[in-house]
Formats: sequence, structure tokens, C-alpha cells
Amino acid sequence: MTYCVGMWLDDGLVFMSDTRTNAGVDNIATARKLFTFENTGERFITILTAGNLATTQTVISMLEERTKAPAERSPSIMEAPSMFQVARIIGQTLREVIADTPDTGQRGESPFDATLIVGGQIAGDPPRLFLIYPEGNFIEAGKGTPYFQIGETKYGRPILVRAYEPEMSFEAAVKLLLVSFDSTIKANLSVGPPLDMQLYETNSCTQGLSQRIDADNEYLQTISKGWGSALKKAFESLPDVTLNKQNDTA
Amino acid sequence: MTYCVGMWLDDGLVFMSDTRTNAGVDNIATARKLFTFENTGERFITILTAGNLATTQTVISMLEERTKAPAERSPSIMEAPSMFQVARIIGQTLREVIADTPDTGQRGESPFDATLIVGGQIAGDPPRLFLIYPEGNFIEAGKGTPYFQIGETKYGRPILVRAYEPEMSFEAAVKLLLVSFDSTIKANLSVGPPLDMQLYETNSCTQGLSQRIDADNEYLQTISKGWGSALKKAFESLPDVTLNKQNDTA
Repeated sequence: MTYCVGMWLDDGLVFMSDTRTNAGVDNIATARKLFTFENTGERFITILTAGNLATTQTVISMLEERTKAPAERSPSIMEAPSMFQVARIIGQTLREVIADTPDTGQRGESPFDATLIVGGQIAGDPPRLFLIYPEGNFIEAGKGTPYFQIGETKYGRPILVRAYEPEMSFEAAVKLLLVSFDSTIKANLSVGPPLDMQLYETNSCTQGLSQRIDADNEYLQTISKGWGSALKKAFESLPDVTLNKQNDTA
Repeated sequence: MTYCVGMWLDDGLVFMSDTRTNAGVDNIATARKLFTFENTGERFITILTAGNLATTQTVISMLEERTKAPAERSPSIMEAPSMFQVARIIGQTLREVIADTPDTGQRGESPFDATLIVGGQIAGDPPRLFLIYPEGNFIEAGKGTPYFQIGETKYGRPILVRAYEPEMSFEAAVKLLLVSFDSTIKANLSVGPPLDMQLYETNSCTQGLSQRIDADNEYLQTISKGWGSALKKAFESLPDVTLNKQNDTA
């Protein structure tokens, strides 16, 4: 499993991913799932990946045009005229990679499937955020759905639903994501630190703050310990139920 | 989907279930998923059901021995000498019902599968709580795993993990379950009110408080509204992250 979130804010975009990859619970490793493409001042693109690691790594390599000699690479997503076109190219690449698995021509619902989040901005257009399905088609974030989750999305969702606000600062958004990731890490062994974080400021078209947050990161530790007691306090602050002693006749 | 929780406390057992049943999102209905069997002062058994409704309703009917004329019914779970034996009988019944589906002999991993929580006490033995798998085998709750969830378990799990304590009162446990159910109902359309609640006091061997909590129940409303703002306050109480402005060289 995996947990990745791409989030749209008034100020820009925030991306976070875990780095655990596993084949069974007895075979875990660390792999990067957050990738960036930049032409400073002109475009900045971030891709988050969930699903079969062979598929997602191949997709990224294909997008980087690693089938060509280094000197001849000019990735087409760096030349596409719009983020919509970038998402189409990535979706098409994903579809081809999944269809390419040697013998049986596996498709979306196969063990080779993968789901991606793609976000970024090309100068002249506003920032865009997309969720790409294993079939290669995609949806775009908007006011109604301002963030996408992929992988193990459920444990970390309630706090996003309750605390997200588009006008929140990057600092608050990172705090929110760390709470969401911590809840997921606590519940699912297949999601684990270190976490990769990427910020993007609207209209910069340039990579923002990019960091790897290790398990022993002091702030992550503070959030993890603090959230347990904050949740308990929140729970205790709710009014007590008065159990009336009458059974229903159900 | 469904959401049910059976919880072991120092004071006894608490059970809660939703009542939504659906075949697609455009075909929903209300069905009871919490069933009780009692021989006052001698034994009290509660069963929670998740999965295929035809399967679970048939299991309950079989346990009630509705294949017999009313006068001849003496359900064997009412005569079993121990809760372990009760769980075995229920598991066996579940396995038979799933295997009985007319043409293809579907088994556990089929669309006819179901998962059950069984808890209760027979005089002389301590209270017991079991989780029964579609294959008919089962596990028992203990100090390490003092509660079981079935159905849509993920959204409501983080608060259970953080706030559950075996010494909590029935009142606190009901509050905790309502928070957990509210988080799930907010996230998954296939889980919905009214909720059924059943309390059981250790060594009473008698039905405790039993209630149906409707969507417009005043306390459920209070919890639902209060939890949103309590969570936000908890989130705000965490220290802010200081984003240093240095990128990693990753």
C-alpha cells in the first residue's frame, strides 16, 4: 500500500507521500513516490504514485524518456502546452505501461494497476490538480473536491474532511497532512515513513520547499504524540450521554 | 456496506450497528443487524452481522430454528455449554448457509460472504467476544484486541485506537462509538442511521439497555456537530510547523 495526498490551496499546491513499498508484510523497502519536473519559471509538475511499483517506476522513467540517450531526452510533458495535456500524456503512458506487461495484456483492474496524482502549473494558466486512474482517464480537483488521496485513503480522511480550508497557510496544511499521515501509519503497516513533502507556490512555476521527513523528525514526533492527547481531550470535551434506563421495544 | 463494533469493557460488553443495507447506491433500505438471544439470568448473547443480507438473515433465522414449528424451536445456541461452543455453532451455520447458495457452491470469498461479531456470557463463565469469518472460523477478543469492527472499519478506527480504555464507563463507551460511527457515516454513503445499541453488564446474564438511535436523535446530533469543532480545536492546539526554507538534496 501507499498513502499520498495532493492538496489545492489558495496559496498553491501541497503534496505528501509515504515511501513504504511492500510485497507481503515480510518484504518491505523504501521507494520514492513523489517526482517533480521543472523548467524554472515556466512550469513545475509534481507526480505522486500509488500501486504496483514496477508500473509506477516505469511510468516515471518513460516520462523522463529514459529509453533515449541522455542527450536526446526532451520529455514531452515539458513541452505540452497545458496541464490538461500533461495529464493526458501521463494517463496515456500509464495505460501503455500496464498494457505492456509481457504475456497477458493486463488492464486497469489487474495486479499491475497504479493510480497517480498530478499537479502543477504552466505559466499563463492557473495551477491544476488531477487524479489519474489505472485506465488512464482522469478527474480534476475543484472547489468541491480540493484534494485527492490515493492508496490507503480511509484512516486519514476524517481529519481532512473536518479541518481542511482552502485559505489555510502552507504551515497549517503541512500540519494537517502530518496528522492525516500519522493516523494512517498507526493503522496500516504498509504505510510508513520517511515522508516526502513538496510545496508549490501559485504563479512561481518553480519548485517550492521540498523535504524528506524521517521517522525521528522532531516535529513529526511532536505531532504524533500530541495528536493522541489532543484527540482524547477533544473526545472528553464532548457532552456525556445520559443513558435512560428504558429499553426500546424494537 | 455496514459498520458494526463489539467492545469489551471491564464493566461488560457494548455493541453498536448501523442499519443501512444497499444494492448499489440507488437502492438502499433499513435492516436490523443486531440480534439478541436471552435466557434471563442464565445467558445473554448478541450477534452483529455484516455482509450479504440474504446470508446474514438466513443465518439468524437458522439459529432461531425457524425451519421448525414455533412450538418445537429450542435453538441449540441456547443450550450450548459455553460461549466458545456458541461461536462454533454460529460459525458452522454461517459456513453452511454460504455453501448452500443454489447452483455454484460459493464459498467465503464470494459475494455471499458475511462476517459476524458474537458476544455474551453464560452464567459461570466470564463474558466472551468473538469475530467469526465467512469461512466459519473465528478469533476471540482479549486484552490486546479488546474490540472488533466489521464492515467499513477504517474511517472510524483512529478514534477507537486513541480513546478506548477498558475501564471506561458505558456512557463513555457509547460516546466513543457514536463519534466513531459519525466519522464513518460522514465518509461512506453505505453506512447510515438509525443505529442500534446494546449494552451488557458483566455477570447479569440478562439483556442490558437496548436502544435504537435515529438520525434526528438529539445526542447524536450534538456529537456530530460537536465533534467537528472539537477536532478543529484539537488540530489547532498542536504546535505549528516551522518550515525551514532549505530544500533537501534528495
